[in-house]
Formats: sequence, structure tokens, C-alpha cells
Amino acid sequence: DMEELFNKVLQVNDLLVRITDDIDPYFLFNLAISEEDFQSLKVQQGLLIDFASFPQKFIDLLNLCISEQTSDSPRFLLHLSCQSPVLEGPANFSVIETNAFKHLNHLSLRLSQASDKEVKDYLAVCLSSLKAEKHALEMKLKTTEDDLTRQLNYAQQ
Amino acid sequence: DMEELFNKVLQVNDLLVRITDDIDPYFLFNLAISEEDFQSLKVQQGLLIDFASFPQKFIDLLNLCISEQTSDSPRFLLHLSCQSPVLEGPANFSVIETNAFKHLNHLSLRLSQASDKEVKDYLAVCLSSLKAEKHALEMKLKTTEDDLTRQLNYAQQ
Repeated sequence: DMEELFNKVLQVNDLLVRITDDIDPYFLFNLAISEEDFQSLKVQQGLLIDFASFPQKFIDLLNLCISEQTSDSPRFLLHLSCQSPVLEGPANFSVIETNAFKHLNHLSLRLSQASDKEVKDYLAVCLSSLKAEKHALEMKLKTTEDDLTRQLNYAQQ
Repeated sequence: DMEELFNKVLQVNDLLVRITDDIDPYFLFNLAISEEDFQSLKVQQGLLIDFASFPQKFIDLLNLCISEQTSDSPRFLLHLSCQSPVLEGPANFSVIETNAFKHLNHLSLRLSQASDKEVKDYLAVCLSSLKAEKHALEMKLKTTEDDLTRQLNYAQQ
């Protein structure tokens, strides 16, 4: 149910990491990583890649987790932890590999819980795209009905 | 595009007046009217009805405005005004009748602009009902396709 979205904000060259939950409209955690932020992340966590290859590498890690979703003992797992029991404040988001010896932390990011304003803006965007999807469905329903009714009338003649 | 919703909050017996805009997800003004609030409204604006009949009377006034929507010189108009040019802070919502002599103010309510949290909650509810509507449409599209395809196959035999 968790969805990761990456948007490279072009003007400032920041990488935006966002965690949402399709079931819970209030669930929203954000992290903007600038090239400078990445340099300290790189040192702290011993990363060997540069900022430009980081987004694709992160996506690859997430895809590894997704590919093992249905496994009984998945080798790669996403782990989201929060100090508060009610999921408030910042959250730690990690990609963990488990092998026979230990848990290996591939990446750990500290995300902030979105403010009311950020959730409001996010929901407005969701609402607008859902409205467009609903409108497209209505059009498709109408076309389908018209097409099939026409074919049916023709076949029954 | 403006939609008026009335919800009688049963526990506290307040009347909730809410103005939204289908086009603008951020547009949200609220007013909760308690029986006590209504008593001062009644005195200030010279209303002759009691609290229990107020919701229906208000709806009647709105319907009068709606019925004259397409008229070139509508007799009843809704008027929303705001001190700030950017629609911030409280807004005055009035039902105005215009006759040959003057503008008659039938009712005037002072609504508050919703906070980020209130807009967030409102959008979460909108999103949830839109999701349900979209799901119903998907089901209907599937049923329509199945039904008509079956009938078509039968007719073509």
C-alpha cells in the first residue's frame, strides 16, 4: 500500500522522496535531498555512488524489495520506524538486506511528517487526478454502451 | 459551482453551514450555528422563525437563488464578500433580494475560512467518496461490457 514517488525538482536539483499510503489519506512523509545533503549522507553511510546516480540506485533498491514482497523470507525489506507510537514527528526509512549472518543497512533516510498544509496540497493533487480518472471512466462507459448497443442492433436486424 | 451543505450535528444540535467550490479544492468556509448563536442572529436580523425551522427556511432561500440562476436580472442572489482581496479571513455570505426599490437583505452570515487542518479533513472525505464513485463506475463498466458482449454473441449465433 506504500507508494514511493520521486520527483527531481528541476530548478534546485533536489531529490524529493515522498511516502504515501493509498488507504490512509493523511499518511505523508517527505524528504528533500540536495546535492549538499547527499554529500554528508554519502560520507555517513559509506555510499559509493554520486548524486546523479542516486535516484536510479534508490529505485533499484525499492524494486528489489517489491520483487520479494510475496516471499516468505524476503531478503530485502523496507523498514519504517517512528519514535512516537502514534506515527508523529520524523520517521526513519531504511532498506534492509537480511542474510544468514546479519541485517545489512543499505540506506537509511530520515523523513519528516508532512504538515497540515503539505497534506492539504497533496490531497488537492490526488483529488484532481482522481477526478480526471473518473471523467475518463465515464467517457469510456458511454462509448462502450454506444458501441455495443449499435453492434447489437445491427446483429439483431 | 458553489455547493452548500448543511449538516445538523446531532449531539450538540449545531447547524453547520459550509461553502465549497467544486473547481477549487482549497475553497472552504464554515460556520457552526448553535441555538444560542441563532437567538442573537434572530434579534440582530429580525428573523421571525425559530431555530428548528431555520435550516429548511435557509434551504428554501438558496433554492430561490438557484431557480433564478439563468435569469438576466435575478431577483434573488447569493453574495459572498471578503475584506481581503485574496479571499482570506472571514467572509460575509448574504441572501439578497433585489426589487424595483432596493436591495433587501434576507439573511447575512459571517463564515470563517477553514484552516489547513479543516481543508485537509474535508479533502480526505472528498477523496474517499470520489474513490467509491470511481469504483462503482469501474464495476458498472465491467457489467455493461459483459452484458452487452453476451447479448451480442447470442444475437450473432
